[in-house]
Amino acid sequence: MIVTLVHIRVKKEFLDDFIRETEMNHRESVKEPGNLRFDILQNAGDPFRFTFYEAYESEDAAAAHKLTPHYNRWREAVEPWMASPRQGVRHKILMPSDLAKW
Amino acid sequence: MIVTLVHIRVKKEFLDDFIRETEMNHRESVKEPGNLRFDILQNAGDPFRFTFYEAYESEDAAAAHKLTPHYNRWREAVEPWMASPRQGVRHKILMPSDLAKW
Repeated sequence: MIVTLVHIRVKKEFLDDFIRETEMNHRESVKEPGNLRFDILQNAGDPFRFTFYEAYESEDAAAAHKLTPHYNRWREAVEPWMASPRQGVRHKILMPSDLAKW
Repeated sequence: MIVTLVHIRVKKEFLDDFIRETEMNHRESVKEPGNLRFDILQNAGDPFRFTFYEAYESEDAAAAHKLTPHYNRWREAVEPWMASPRQGVRHKILMPSDLAKW
């Protein structure tokens, strides 16, 4: 099981557009086989900073996300709205270690 | 609903101690009223870096965590094991917005 934390900074003028496209990506991503969570968080102190919490059962399931139409639509749509390049940081899940708790 | 992302760097010689104390904190924290998740992640590229994903139903529930015996035991135990001060970053939850999905 792995989690990728994706850190994003959005240009101010595209905030609403970004949230709208991300809503679509979220809605489809949680339906993917092997997806455990796909939470969208907004920094409480800076509304233009977001973190995506993308948890998958396996490396293969996480890799398959990048081949989906909804991910690719999202990636192309939001690219010009980024205030800086987005950063994905991969993590191992230590706890809960039981898949049933996800 | 809120999430605090807590970023931690552990001194190399205390890695096992830190994981052991954190396991205890995790096990008790998920039983707290209003706790939605308390996931412990280890950076895939740097095993001495951790992120805690602490999701709560409300600000009050998140604040109550800091009053628990298990949190205070953990905080005191790990303090000398930190390689740098730990950082908590508060977030609003945008998606999923439905509490039943947590």
